[in-house]
Amino acid sequence: MNKVNITPNRFLMTSPVVLLSCWGKESKPNIITLAWTGVLCSDPPIVYASIRPSRHSHSLLKDNGDFVLNLPSADQVREVDLCGIVSGRKEDKFSLCGFTAEPAEKVNAPLIVECSVNLECRTRDVLHLGVHDAFVADVIGLLVDEDKVIGADRVDDSLFAPLVYATGPRHYHSTERIEGAHYGFSKSSKPPWEKE
Amino acid sequence: MNKVNITPNRFLMTSPVVLLSCWGKESKPNIITLAWTGVLCSDPPIVYASIRPSRHSHSLLKDNGDFVLNLPSADQVREVDLCGIVSGRKEDKFSLCGFTAEPAEKVNAPLIVECSVNLECRTRDVLHLGVHDAFVADVIGLLVDEDKVIGADRVDDSLFAPLVYATGPRHYHSTERIEGAHYGFSKSSKPPWEKE
Repeated sequence: MNKVNITPNRFLMTSPVVLLSCWGKESKPNIITLAWTGVLCSDPPIVYASIRPSRHSHSLLKDNGDFVLNLPSADQVREVDLCGIVSGRKEDKFSLCGFTAEPAEKVNAPLIVECSVNLECRTRDVLHLGVHDAFVADVIGLLVDEDKVIGADRVDDSLFAPLVYATGPRHYHSTERIEGAHYGFSKSSKPPWEKE
Repeated sequence: MNKVNITPNRFLMTSPVVLLSCWGKESKPNIITLAWTGVLCSDPPIVYASIRPSRHSHSLLKDNGDFVLNLPSADQVREVDLCGIVSGRKEDKFSLCGFTAEPAEKVNAPLIVECSVNLECRTRDVLHLGVHDAFVADVIGLLVDEDKVIGADRVDDSLFAPLVYATGPRHYHSTERIEGAHYGFSKSSKPPWEKE
């Protein structure tokens, strides 16, 4: 198969999609939907959130770099989309989405109660890269709905449905567990489609 | 619902999962599976790949920072898993997976022919963050299988099935398009589940 070199502006990668909540210095909570986000380091836990300087959340984060990454489920896809296309300068996105804001525990930022998982983040560095600035942040706390936690810090994974964003087609996708395909399965077993 | 604060070491985010190929100075191609990867900036296109210093690919990238991010489809999940748990110091992962290495066009690195999409990347900076170093890289080229390109640089999205990794449960997932949920759909239409 021949390969064709095309303009590298549509990344074609699957991306997480999260709702970042913050409130600057004035404590008026805002939300922005982000696909340019991910884990940079496991220990200490460090994530990033890339945001265009023109966005309202960018100016809030310059005032106060604390934020929460709220992980939406697939049935919150409409709210996720809305928070990506509406500006917090003009609209109250919490009220628009029917979301409840509560102060996070360990950082000075609001969280979205209706999201089952909330990562409490504190900016440690900002990378000025081009049209996006990357806010590099320590994950100081991880809040999970009580009924989804098992024991000290295990989470019932089946209880939330992660939503992803296909950056090429600009489309939201749900995810489905590939039966038998846990990390390390290839050493101990045949792939599911070769099993009889 | 009460929230419980748990140790922030299982991120619970969905993550892309890609195969990074590189060959250092000696041009012996290697592959490493990465979940800590993503887009940092759209323009110029900049991505990152976080790798532990103990990994073989880390030492190759220190010698030569060019690499390719190869996007696997869901039916390559076994190869993806294998390349994440086997060391290139001991095994030839291309031969282990039945993959073909070819030199990329714009960077000094091998690509995996069997992956439909290959991002050609050149390291511009390395962030030393903790157990992972983040290789921050410009995307210089984007190679796509000829039969998946429409016109100058549109790609037939339906032809490849992106694979994702659920970092909490440590499980591979396939993705499924949520019908009607393209970027911006919330402004123009009701969500799919409210339509009659």
